[in-house]
Amino acid sequence: MNSKFISQIQNGEPLAVARALTRVERGGDDARNLIRALFPYTGRADIIGITGAPGTGKSTLVNALAKELCAREKRVAIIAVDPSSPFTGGAILGDRFRMQDLAGTGIFIRSMASRGQLGGLAAAVSDAILVLDAAGFDVILVETVGAGQGEVDIAKHAHTTIVLEAPGFGDDIQAIKAGILEIADILVVNKADRDGANATVAALQMNLSLNPDKRAWRPPVLKTIALQGKGMSELADAIAKHKTYTNENHLRVKKEAARFDDELRELLKRELLGKKLQNVSDARWQNWIDEIITRKRDLYAIAEEILNA
Amino acid sequence: MNSKFISQIQNGEPLAVARALTRVERGGDDARNLIRALFPYTGRADIIGITGAPGTGKSTLVNALAKELCAREKRVAIIAVDPSSPFTGGAILGDRFRMQDLAGTGIFIRSMASRGQLGGLAAAVSDAILVLDAAGFDVILVETVGAGQGEVDIAKHAHTTIVLEAPGFGDDIQAIKAGILEIADILVVNKADRDGANATVAALQMNLSLNPDKRAWRPPVLKTIALQGKGMSELADAIAKHKTYTNENHLRVKKEAARFDDELRELLKRELLGKKLQNVSDARWQNWIDEIITRKRDLYAIAEEILNA
Repeated sequence: MNSKFISQIQNGEPLAVARALTRVERGGDDARNLIRALFPYTGRADIIGITGAPGTGKSTLVNALAKELCAREKRVAIIAVDPSSPFTGGAILGDRFRMQDLAGTGIFIRSMASRGQLGGLAAAVSDAILVLDAAGFDVILVETVGAGQGEVDIAKHAHTTIVLEAPGFGDDIQAIKAGILEIADILVVNKADRDGANATVAALQMNLSLNPDKRAWRPPVLKTIALQGKGMSELADAIAKHKTYTNENHLRVKKEAARFDDELRELLKRELLGKKLQNVSDARWQNWIDEIITRKRDLYAIAEEILNA
Repeated sequence: MNSKFISQIQNGEPLAVARALTRVERGGDDARNLIRALFPYTGRADIIGITGAPGTGKSTLVNALAKELCAREKRVAIIAVDPSSPFTGGAILGDRFRMQDLAGTGIFIRSMASRGQLGGLAAAVSDAILVLDAAGFDVILVETVGAGQGEVDIAKHAHTTIVLEAPGFGDDIQAIKAGILEIADILVVNKADRDGANATVAALQMNLSLNPDKRAWRPPVLKTIALQGKGMSELADAIAKHKTYTNENHLRVKKEAARFDDELRELLKRELLGKKLQNVSDARWQNWIDEIITRKRDLYAIAEEILNA
């Protein structure tokens, strides 16, 4: 690994950081070597996950929050994760608006999407967080589309998880059922100038009050109008308060343990399967799948054969 | 495996089916033996995935669609997947409404949620589909919260994937960016009596027309008001049309291949990791994680040690 490149990344030089992220997205030995070289310099950044359904104004809020943190003298990076690859220029158009909005602020932004395997995207995001951490960013905002498994994964990586709702989402049973309240450290009702904002806040508060989970941290429910930058100061305060709480209760180190436990298992699984299948031809694999589709043998019978080989 | 139990399941006896699903949720050798016994009798059911963000009216639509299919003399089962475990009775309350709504129809419904590992839930859903398939249901509706990785997983299993939107979701860039249009075989704008329904339909149509994906199937965009049962006949027709298309183009067998390819890989990964770690004590594992957290060694160094042991 080129030591000049490593120190350029450590110095947070934007071009070097961007190149490092591209390398990490491509994966393979190159990504692995880079991460190994950078790993000793990681562990300082605050990782903030922001998640919410489409239409809650997530990108706008993340941009506004990034600017607020910037004004508080933090170096901020954004990773916008979009596992659903778009057809066309839609995403690029959206990204362009965002980038213009952030121009000249010193805020680093990177979109990560994947047409390929999703496990691949999750691993790439983990590695991208490590790159930005080594590059000296104080705060890394990781933005994901919700609500599904994606969110839950991000909660594993983040020190603080913000769940976004918007009026009209949070006031029925279904929305709260799917509301992933358990993973939220901070709840935000964005677009709070819309009808029904108070009802959404009340519904969330009620659900939180029923929470049998007796953790000492009671997630605050904040109202924001991200488009006007309203509520960002309160949100940044809530993040700082949650950080203090996690530090005082040794939760930060527990979250890190859960994150690396998970990542180590995933890495081992990929490596073990790769090794096991390295001498299996495509034709042989296809033959096994055909036996399953035609119900000649079941998955478990085939798995046994492969494991005993 | 008790052969009387197996034939009770094959006869679709509700209590036997419910017991089989409970067994599958618990996992382990018991689930494996059950699936192995049932596997030869699977492969006939149509698997329909229905996904959409909270607030789009997913449960109501699935119930209404199930009744429509029932009226067309199909035997219908519903699996409602909710990876976000709720705090309280919210989900149970929602389920109770649904079950009352379906009482006496002969439609089988089962909710699946998990507080545990998400890989565990995905495997349990796959196995539940096989149980219902062996039990002779013609159609299995698999309902998931979107939009995230969860959806994409279901698209792998489903023969037909329906993506739900509601007015106010589909008419901005963000929603379409996250709109997972690529996995949709049928698009539905539900709550079509609300303001903005036509704008949402138009936005979806426009995005589809920009689709560089040249598959012959152009996903229809339907309007429904599920609460009033409106649009269900058209939706059932679209599903039937999509089935004809997939059969004529041998896509059904391709989808099955992708599904079992994925499941076989996941099964192998779980088995390989379990075997590799069976003699590793908790203390030793914890020690490795500590080395990573304190940045003494990196993930890849630890993985190498484990793989070479």
